[in-house]
Amino acid sequence: MNKDNPKILLVGAGAVGTYFCGRLAQAGAKVSAVSRSDYDVAKDAGYDIKSIDGDFIFKPENVLRSSDEYADKPDYLVVAMKSLPELNIPEIIKGAVSPETSIVLIQNGIYIEKDIASAFPDNELISAVAFIGVTRIRPGFVEHKGAGRLEMGIYPKGKSDKLRALNELFEKAKVNCEIVDDIEEIRWRKEVWNVPFNSISVLGRADTKMIVSNPVTLELARNMMTEVCAVAEANGHKLSDSIIDDNINYTIEYPAYKTSMLVDFENGRPIEKESILGHVIKAAEDKNISVPHLESVYALLNLLDNKIVRP
Amino acid sequence: MNKDNPKILLVGAGAVGTYFCGRLAQAGAKVSAVSRSDYDVAKDAGYDIKSIDGDFIFKPENVLRSSDEYADKPDYLVVAMKSLPELNIPEIIKGAVSPETSIVLIQNGIYIEKDIASAFPDNELISAVAFIGVTRIRPGFVEHKGAGRLEMGIYPKGKSDKLRALNELFEKAKVNCEIVDDIEEIRWRKEVWNVPFNSISVLGRADTKMIVSNPVTLELARNMMTEVCAVAEANGHKLSDSIIDDNINYTIEYPAYKTSMLVDFENGRPIEKESILGHVIKAAEDKNISVPHLESVYALLNLLDNKIVRP
Repeated sequence: MNKDNPKILLVGAGAVGTYFCGRLAQAGAKVSAVSRSDYDVAKDAGYDIKSIDGDFIFKPENVLRSSDEYADKPDYLVVAMKSLPELNIPEIIKGAVSPETSIVLIQNGIYIEKDIASAFPDNELISAVAFIGVTRIRPGFVEHKGAGRLEMGIYPKGKSDKLRALNELFEKAKVNCEIVDDIEEIRWRKEVWNVPFNSISVLGRADTKMIVSNPVTLELARNMMTEVCAVAEANGHKLSDSIIDDNINYTIEYPAYKTSMLVDFENGRPIEKESILGHVIKAAEDKNISVPHLESVYALLNLLDNKIVRP
Repeated sequence: MNKDNPKILLVGAGAVGTYFCGRLAQAGAKVSAVSRSDYDVAKDAGYDIKSIDGDFIFKPENVLRSSDEYADKPDYLVVAMKSLPELNIPEIIKGAVSPETSIVLIQNGIYIEKDIASAFPDNELISAVAFIGVTRIRPGFVEHKGAGRLEMGIYPKGKSDKLRALNELFEKAKVNCEIVDDIEEIRWRKEVWNVPFNSISVLGRADTKMIVSNPVTLELARNMMTEVCAVAEANGHKLSDSIIDDNINYTIEYPAYKTSMLVDFENGRPIEKESILGHVIKAAEDKNISVPHLESVYALLNLLDNKIVRP
C-alpha cells in the first residue's frame, strides 16, 4: 500500500460516508465510491459538501453502481451504509474485497461486526464510531453541521499499522480521529445515549428537548440507560458510574436535536432499530438480564416500523 | 320518581351517551341532553341513530348548552363524557344535581368514580361499563355497529331500587344490561384488554390484527396484561387465571378493530390515557408493585399526546 495515497472504496455513499471519505480524498487518498441513488450527479459533478470545517467538493476517482465494478484491489473498503438486517453487507462488498483489503465499518449500533468478521475471517476489520451531525439534503449535496469525530479500533481489539496509517490520513485531513484499543466499549458508551433517545424520539415524534422536558419520558430514558449499562457490564464492559447523568445533563443543556432515527422515520426510510436496540435485547437474553423497558419500547418500534409502506 | 317515565339528564351527548339514553327514551324516559358540539342539529332534528339493533331517532325533551339550564330535578343524571383530567365533572354537572338525583357514570377506565363520589357524598352513584361499538359520524348522526351491553352497579358496591328500575328500563328498551355487585371488578376486567390494546394501537398506529400478528408486540400486550392483573389483585380483585389467554384468543379471532383511543388520536382529540393507563400505574405505585412495561408505554403515550396540537 502507498501510505500517502491509499486506494479506498466507499460502499454506502450517504452523508457520513461521503463526508469522511471526501476528507480522506482531500488528504491524498484515491477514493472511489459505490452509489445507487446519487450515481448520476456524483459521476458528473461529485459531492458538494457544505461543512462547518470548510466546504469542499468530493470528486471520487470512479463512481460505481456496485462493488463488483471496482477494477482494483482496495487498501481500505469503507462500509458506511445504514446497519439494517435486510442489507447483506458481505454480499454487497465481496466483489471488491481482496486479501490485502482492510474493511472499515463506520456504522451505528452494537454487535454489527460479527457477520462481516465471519464472512471475511482473514481480512483486517477496522470498526469506527462516528460522532457527527451530517445530512444528505439532496442527491450529491451534503450538509455537515455538528461535531465530526471518529473513534476507531481493530475488531475485536487491538491496533495495527494500517489502522495507524488511516488515522494519520484523517489527521492530515483535519478530522478529529482517535485510535482506541477496545472499540466495543466505545459502541456501548454511544448506545447509552442512542438507545433511549433514538427510539423514544420516533415513538413520540419528539426532539431531544421535548423528551427531556417531560419528566415521565426522562424517567423512561433513564431506566432504559440503566438497562443498557447492565447489559454492557454483563458483557464485560462496566461503564463509568456517571455515564447516565452525564448523558442526561448533556442532552438537557444541548439545543433541541432531531435524532437520525426520527429523520429516517419521517422520510419513510428504514430505521436502525435492530443494530441500535434489538441487538442489546438479544445480548440481554443471552445473559439472562431483565430489560423490560427496552423490550417494551422495542416492541412498539417494531410494530410501528413494520407498518410503514416504503416508498 | 315515576318508575316508568323517569326524568333523565344526559351530560356528554357523544356516541355512547346518545345511544344508551336514546334507548331509555324509547322505553319511556323523559330525557334531556346537554350538548355543546351538536346543539343546533340535536335541538332541531334530534339524533339520528343507525343501529344493528334497529335504527331510531332520539329526540331529547330539551337540548341544553349546560346542565345549569336544566329546570327540573333529574332522577338520573347520566355522565357519558370521555374521562379526561381536564374535564372537571363535578363542576360540569353540579348545576343539575339535586338530593334525589342518582348519578350514572358510563365511562372507561379505573378509579374514575372517586372525584364524583367525594363531590356528591349524599347522592347515589351508579357506575356502568359499556361494551359497545358506536361512533359519532357527524353532528347528530351516530352509528352503532357492535355489541351494546352494559354492566352496572352501585359505587363502590351494592344494589338499590333505583339501580333495578334503571335496569328494567334498559331491558324494556332491549338493551342487554346486567346488574353487578362489584363494578370495580368489572372495570379491572375490562382494563385487562383496554390497557394494552388502546395504548399500543396509538403508539404503533395499528389495529388489533396488526398488534396480535406481530409476536413481539403480542408479547408486550401479554406482559402489560400480567401487570394489570397484579395491580388488580393487590387492590382486592384477583381476576381469573385464564383472563389473559381469553382476551388474547378473543382478539386473535375477532376481526381487525381500531381502538377508541386510536380513533380519538387520529382525530386530534384528547385520549383517555390517564383513566385507562395512568390510574393503574398510580395504583401500582401505592402498592409498591413494579410495572415496567406499563410505565414504558405510558411514558411514550404521554410524550406523544402532549405534543399534539389540538384543533
